[in-house]
Order: sequence, then C-alpha cells, then structure tokens
Amino acid sequence: MNETIVIVGLGLIGGSIAKALRGAGSCRVLGMDLDEDVLLDAISCGAIAEKAGVEDLKSADLVYLCLYPKEALEFAQKYGPLLKEGCVLTDTCGVKAEICAGLSSLQGTGKYVFVGGHPMAGKEHSGFAASDGGLFAGASYIVTPCGAPDWAVEKVLSYARRMGFGKFVTTTPERHDRAIAFTSQTPHVLACAYVMSPRCPEHHGFSAGSYRDVSRVADINSALWTRLFLMNRGALVEELDELTRNLGLFRDAVAAGDEPALRSLLEKARAIKTTQG
Amino acid sequence: MNETIVIVGLGLIGGSIAKALRGAGSCRVLGMDLDEDVLLDAISCGAIAEKAGVEDLKSADLVYLCLYPKEALEFAQKYGPLLKEGCVLTDTCGVKAEICAGLSSLQGTGKYVFVGGHPMAGKEHSGFAASDGGLFAGASYIVTPCGAPDWAVEKVLSYARRMGFGKFVTTTPERHDRAIAFTSQTPHVLACAYVMSPRCPEHHGFSAGSYRDVSRVADINSALWTRLFLMNRGALVEELDELTRNLGLFRDAVAAGDEPALRSLLEKARAIKTTQG
Repeated sequence: MNETIVIVGLGLIGGSIAKALRGAGSCRVLGMDLDEDVLLDAISCGAIAEKAGVEDLKSADLVYLCLYPKEALEFAQKYGPLLKEGCVLTDTCGVKAEICAGLSSLQGTGKYVFVGGHPMAGKEHSGFAASDGGLFAGASYIVTPCGAPDWAVEKVLSYARRMGFGKFVTTTPERHDRAIAFTSQTPHVLACAYVMSPRCPEHHGFSAGSYRDVSRVADINSALWTRLFLMNRGALVEELDELTRNLGLFRDAVAAGDEPALRSLLEKARAIKTTQG
Repeated sequence: MNETIVIVGLGLIGGSIAKALRGAGSCRVLGMDLDEDVLLDAISCGAIAEKAGVEDLKSADLVYLCLYPKEALEFAQKYGPLLKEGCVLTDTCGVKAEICAGLSSLQGTGKYVFVGGHPMAGKEHSGFAASDGGLFAGASYIVTPCGAPDWAVEKVLSYARRMGFGKFVTTTPERHDRAIAFTSQTPHVLACAYVMSPRCPEHHGFSAGSYRDVSRVADINSALWTRLFLMNRGALVEELDELTRNLGLFRDAVAAGDEPALRSLLEKARAIKTTQG
C-alpha cells in the first residue's frame, strides 16, 4: 500500500510514533517540526525519511497531530483544507472533548476525515531526545471516532498495532475524559501535592518503592499539564473531591484511633484493588 | 566467627532475611515460627539450618524479631531473660517510637542489648512464600540504637550489609516515625483512598503507569497496616492533613481556571522533585 504518513510535531509522542513505525514497512514517514535541529536528528537516526512540506501534506494518507491542543487546532485550521479526500487526520491529545469538538467542526473546511486518538503512554521527560520506539509496547490506544467511518478508525488502529500497542479502546470524548481524570490526571496532581510536604527534603534513606512510585510524575511538564488539567476541569475537580473525601475517611479513623473502622477501610480498598487490578 | 542467628517469625521479612543471609557464610541461621509447614519449607529450601528451640535462643548472638509489634513485645518479655550477655536483640517493625520504648524498657529484665531496626523493603504480598533473598538489594536499613553501644549497632549494620542493603541510616525513633509517615504510610493511605473512586472499575484500557504506580500498594495487609498506622497516629494525621491542604491548592486552581496559579504550583512541585529526587 505504501502510504504517506506525516507526523506534525516530533516531541516525545510524535518522535516515538515515528520511531515505532520505522520497522513497520510499507509506509513512508515524514515529519514536520518548528525546530530544524530536531528534524535533522530525526532524519539522521532514520525516524523519518525526510522533512514534510506543504506538497507532502497534500498527498498524505494519514496525518498525526502531535502538538499541544491549541497548536493542533491552529494547524488543522490552516492546513486542513489542503488535505486530500480520504486522508485521515488524527491527534494525540490527552483530553478529548474540547479538541474533538474543535477538530470535528473544522473538518467541514476540508475533505479529510478526523478520528480522535490518545496513545496512552508517556514519560517524565519530553522532546524528541526522550522519544523511544518501544514506548508503546503493550500500551492502550484510545480512539474517539466522533462520527468517522469504520475504515478511517480501522486505519488509525491498524497503525497503532504496528507501533506495538496492545490494547485498543473505542469510546466517546466525554467517557474518555472522565476515565482519564481518574487514571492519569489525579495521579499527576497527587504526585505534585505529595512532594510539597515539608518532610520531602528529608526522605533520603527513609524511602523505598512507595515514595518513588507516588512522586515519580511530579517531574512534570507544567505547560502541557496546566492545559490538560484546565481542558478537563469538571471531571478533574470531581475526582479530586472524591479523593479528598476518601482520604478524610482514613484520616478520621486514624485520628480517632478507631481500629475496626480503619481495618474495614483498608479491607475495602484491598478488595477493590485485587478485583480491579 | 560462626555466630548463631535466630530469626523469630519467618514471614516476608524474616524469610527474606534468612534467604539473604544464606550466602553470607560464617553464621548459623536458625528460625522460629508458629507454622510448622513454614519451618519445613524454610529448612528444605536452605533458608534456615534448622528450627530454633529454647536452647538455641540461650546461645544466640543475634536475634531478629520479625513479628507484629505486639507479638514482638510479648516474645521479648517471655524469652528476653534467657538471652546471653552480649546477645543483640533487634526488631524489624516499621514504626519505632512505641516498640523501641517497650523493648528498651524490657531490656532491663535480661543481659542482652536491644537495637531497633527497620529494613526498608516490602512487597504487596506477605508470608514466607513471598520472601526473597534479593528483596533488600540496594535498600535502606535504618537503625535506632536507643542507647545501645557502638559494637552492637555495628553488628546489626554488618549483617545488613551482607544481606545486600545499600543505604544505612542511624536515627532516633521519633525522627524515623515522622519520616516514615511521609515516605511510606501516606502512600499506602493514598493508594487505598485512590482506588475507592467510583471510576476505578472502569480504568481498564484507560490506565498506564500512573494508575499502576499510585494504586500498587492498595493490595494491602490490613491487619499489619492498621497497627502500623495507629502506632504513628500523630505524625500520620499531620502528614495527611498536609497532603489534603496541598491537594486543595491544586483543586482550587483547577476549579477557578486559574492558569498562572496552576502552572506555578506545578513548577514548584517539579522543582522539589528534581532537587530531592
């Protein structure tokens, strides 16, 4: 089939997609990035065949927007009308309702098909230098079709399989955002709130796996996550309130020295964890 | 030197100590456990040379109490008077102030020397079957001497080195307990409170490293941790209140859509994490 794929934005995710597709064969992967050094790096390590220009966009079969949300919308507004009929435009934004609404409505200005996407993988570090072709091994690829035809959704999923993803979920932007507020955004807020304890600087020698695991993502990309959190305000606030309420149950049982209540809370949590994994 | 070591309680920690000392040579490791099957398992896999009896306690050079706090105190009360002069009795309890006060005062009833200890390693699973000679590789071994002479503290640390521990901290029970409330107890409460969200059962397909890391220790030994939490009420409640306050700062910035405030909180957290590790 020899399709042409253009990856817009060669940061951690765009770079990792390029590298993961390197071994996939039967497609030509081109890249766009504002940073010329990144483009040279990507070419020299073989992640992309070459830099994509406007003509390449016109002939692309699949375009990945690996940009911050606002920039992704601006790109689609400017270059969407150039994409050919049958081209699939997909994004990689971690919050879907707002960006899917924007990209779905922009779709009318072009002939392409939009399929929302969220490759669920990450790292504490960002940028092309941190990208890794093995980042997606076994991870979950979520698509929000937003009315796209099956063949377009299948094209996105088929490349996700080639990149090494192991789980595939099709859902609505709203369900995605509620789930992600719990699975991803809350742990990021938690990590940041946790390390703010005055005891944090004294953790050396007193910490093991628990400290490392909870604090890991506190080394956060603040620009990106500020936007992601604010794009999902309602669901995130609900989740943080839920967590605060539940923390309060434990706190009160400990403060009261209420052994049966505390033990029953711990047993409830254990039952959930062993059932849900 | 060929010292005799008795490990009392062959659960996760006692079993791992026995296995970790197996390759250390020049010591004879004996075990005590209420469960005869565990003793047979420990002998048949070579973790202990044989079951320890009262006569072995009398000739022991080093005794590890790998029991729950209450049982550790009961054991010291009953068998402490039998231990010989120069024997070092140490424990492995995760909260130190209460048990060190108890074991220090019991010391007067015998000729042994007490050194508080906390091998900082664990697993979600308990019991001898989960024990592992490699559990301590690179981990932190904390001692609370509570007035013990240097040679006794050095004996405990020297065996910790043989077990593969990589960091060694000497501190007071009170400083230990404040640090541990932050590094270990709070993450355990957090994991339990986190999985209580009504969104938890829907995490499949939407979760990656963040969910896994924060929820990991929710598969908790409720009997053990109830006791550990209640032995450290003051410090733990202070830490949970601190965390709740800090979570509230993020929650309010998100709810208000206050981008500068949210970004500055994230940057503050990132600076702490990158400085403190």
